[in-house]
Amino acid sequence: MDTALPRAAPDPAFLDRLRARFGERLHLTDAMLRQHGSNEAHFDVVLPDAVVFAHSTEDVVDLVNLCVAADVPIVPFGAGTSIEGNAVPVRGGVSVNLGEMNQIVAVNAEDFDCTVQAGCRREQLNEHLRDTGLFFPIDPGANATIGGMASTRASGTNAVRYGTMREAVLSLKVVTPDGRVVTTARRARKSAAGYDLTRLYVGSEGTLGIITEVTLRLHPIPETISSAVCGFDSLEGAITTVVQSIQAGVPLARVEILDDMQIRAVNAWSKLALPEVTTLFFEFHGSPGGVAEQVEMVGMLAAENGGGDFAWSNLPEERGRLWKARHEAYYAAVALRPGAVGWATDVCVPISRLPECITATKADLATCSVPATILGHVGDGNFHVIFAMDPQSKADLAEVEGVNARLVARALAMDGTCTGEHGIGIGKQHWLVEELGDAVDVMRTLKRALDPKDLFNPGKIFSL
Amino acid sequence: MDTALPRAAPDPAFLDRLRARFGERLHLTDAMLRQHGSNEAHFDVVLPDAVVFAHSTEDVVDLVNLCVAADVPIVPFGAGTSIEGNAVPVRGGVSVNLGEMNQIVAVNAEDFDCTVQAGCRREQLNEHLRDTGLFFPIDPGANATIGGMASTRASGTNAVRYGTMREAVLSLKVVTPDGRVVTTARRARKSAAGYDLTRLYVGSEGTLGIITEVTLRLHPIPETISSAVCGFDSLEGAITTVVQSIQAGVPLARVEILDDMQIRAVNAWSKLALPEVTTLFFEFHGSPGGVAEQVEMVGMLAAENGGGDFAWSNLPEERGRLWKARHEAYYAAVALRPGAVGWATDVCVPISRLPECITATKADLATCSVPATILGHVGDGNFHVIFAMDPQSKADLAEVEGVNARLVARALAMDGTCTGEHGIGIGKQHWLVEELGDAVDVMRTLKRALDPKDLFNPGKIFSL
Repeated sequence: MDTALPRAAPDPAFLDRLRARFGERLHLTDAMLRQHGSNEAHFDVVLPDAVVFAHSTEDVVDLVNLCVAADVPIVPFGAGTSIEGNAVPVRGGVSVNLGEMNQIVAVNAEDFDCTVQAGCRREQLNEHLRDTGLFFPIDPGANATIGGMASTRASGTNAVRYGTMREAVLSLKVVTPDGRVVTTARRARKSAAGYDLTRLYVGSEGTLGIITEVTLRLHPIPETISSAVCGFDSLEGAITTVVQSIQAGVPLARVEILDDMQIRAVNAWSKLALPEVTTLFFEFHGSPGGVAEQVEMVGMLAAENGGGDFAWSNLPEERGRLWKARHEAYYAAVALRPGAVGWATDVCVPISRLPECITATKADLATCSVPATILGHVGDGNFHVIFAMDPQSKADLAEVEGVNARLVARALAMDGTCTGEHGIGIGKQHWLVEELGDAVDVMRTLKRALDPKDLFNPGKIFSL
Repeated sequence: MDTALPRAAPDPAFLDRLRARFGERLHLTDAMLRQHGSNEAHFDVVLPDAVVFAHSTEDVVDLVNLCVAADVPIVPFGAGTSIEGNAVPVRGGVSVNLGEMNQIVAVNAEDFDCTVQAGCRREQLNEHLRDTGLFFPIDPGANATIGGMASTRASGTNAVRYGTMREAVLSLKVVTPDGRVVTTARRARKSAAGYDLTRLYVGSEGTLGIITEVTLRLHPIPETISSAVCGFDSLEGAITTVVQSIQAGVPLARVEILDDMQIRAVNAWSKLALPEVTTLFFEFHGSPGGVAEQVEMVGMLAAENGGGDFAWSNLPEERGRLWKARHEAYYAAVALRPGAVGWATDVCVPISRLPECITATKADLATCSVPATILGHVGDGNFHVIFAMDPQSKADLAEVEGVNARLVARALAMDGTCTGEHGIGIGKQHWLVEELGDAVDVMRTLKRALDPKDLFNPGKIFSL
């Protein structure tokens, strides 16, 4: 869906200043602009006027100062894996690519933390950490950058046990709209020193400044990791198993629900042969005895709720194959229909309401002509419907918009949120107002105070 | 230390408006003003002009509107247990007491959350929750209000396992300086819906608005709880035991260090007979098997690091007695010297630096004439020195200020914070700037944007 409107050419004098400062790291080719104006979902392509690859915080400071002096928007870009159009430069300007700013600055293994540049990717970090006995647990599926994950408050499959980027980030280095470099916190595990700027920037989608470094909490690699797959004869039975497990205090590390359609998609994409029924993917972390206790309890609850046999895998390769399939579930779902584009919903509700929310959504999907799967981080109350839309079809778009509107309204009526982990980006702005009312005015006040010219990823989260 | 300066009498017309709205819940007696102008530490008493007891969010809205219209400061007051002078009305105005606004609004046991009014106290909440199988873990020792704990980002003995108020608060109802009531989040366990206003208000010490309701995450009461006390032949040995336990992945629920002086104080205050050496208080939570594994691992590490025998208590009464003694440690330390007032330091450092930080502090205390104990949440890297100061002695004050200045400088040099859990309040404002530099300007910008007249707990965290 490329409906970008023709725009005035960027000011040549401004581009000359960028070229003088960044040389070959300034890019103006159509291919490069298109890469930075595209997205993994259904949003229109909107080209930036220029792309600059930053290599240091100083680069970002200079770029910020040049852009602000010229009233040019500036939009940070990491891996481009976000799915609410979060990095699409909807008002043009400069897309600043942080992907080459990917150094691992420090690993403090004794303190269970590390500091990375914003462009470091999560797989790269975990590869680097392997010999330390530690890992970084936040796992949204895509191999996103740490800066991008912080900006969207990402979470994913491990959040039920290890939390989200909200809990994972200890401190940030941020370039503010007035060109200053601020560090939001020291490396202590907790602090009561003034306003929690770390949490203010986490999830702010680049609208308040540009994150250039992130200090993260790490966790010990568990002594024992065990994964299992279990099919259920009903959606309710699967969800009830999870709710009861959590109520029993089982510290599930991962628990993912995939409906029958999603299993069909995963089987085709990842060459698996799972029974095409509602299925839970589990992962248990702990000591050998602890994992054995968890497994026994969950197995008992699954059996009481219509679960079939558990298929176990304790071998790293088998576990890797299973979770790789889960990670690729979005692509698998979109691939159900050749040439389709994806649209992922993202509601999150209090866990007691999850069975009702998913069941009602599944019923709604039964009358929807667009292929769709359900996939969820069921321990958090967060699930996605993934639609495989014909990019040319206005009827598809209207139908999906209808299902999504009903789904978000259903979640809000259950005291849930329109977005568990993808952010507001372009597409959820009116839902944010439905969800939080006057609190959005407080957000606008903060935005105006910190970015008075509205140049930092303008048009995202809300319009001023 | 009552050095409050004489102030102009409050505007009678303003007081008339308060009386018309709040009737007998407006208090002007000296005893009541004094109660709200005092504090548990060494800060000067500063009387408010009036005290109003709020019973509802609507009360707070009306009070805010009256105060803002008259340019009168407004300072929230909970239980008065904070120890950085956080609730002292240093610029006069109205102290709004939320202590009678203590309803438990809802308990959603299936969702592991509850909503309480700001004046609900933590012991009241846990009493109420007892039959649900859930508990609220954040435990700063004092029986503080939940609103006060949110405002100071409190934590305490359970934080190593369950986090701080930063992690515990799901959502807040806040009356903003423009008299609006905003709800910062829905009840979903996670959300990526815009700026994290919840975390912005948590720890803002009443400077951005007044919290009237708090929605909290709860946790299942563990199947097995076991407590132990273990004396060590050195400070380093005790701390190393904790660091190694965490590195081994032991999910300690509580681990507190008390130095020899603190044990002496606790023995005297709580009628115990613990050996007067550096001591760790432990608590383990989990399944029977899980707790047994934790205990075995920690016992082995303690033995390797000069720890003596573990004194166990699995009976609730015994555990209660032990932790009651720990909770009263602040009062016990101040009571080492009849008529003394307390001063508690509050640094928190990366855990690898903790042995060095505590050891150097202990050495510094050896030359200090003011009685002092050391007490710490050692799993977080957070510890307190509690001084028992003569309230009349300028020499005492100077000496304590010297030790504290060296301690904070030491912690900052280790990438730590000047306050792990007490907040900035009155006393740590210049240290906040040392700690976070330009980030404090960002905080000031937020404050000016949300409270342009500087009427909400003015003079705390920073001066504008």
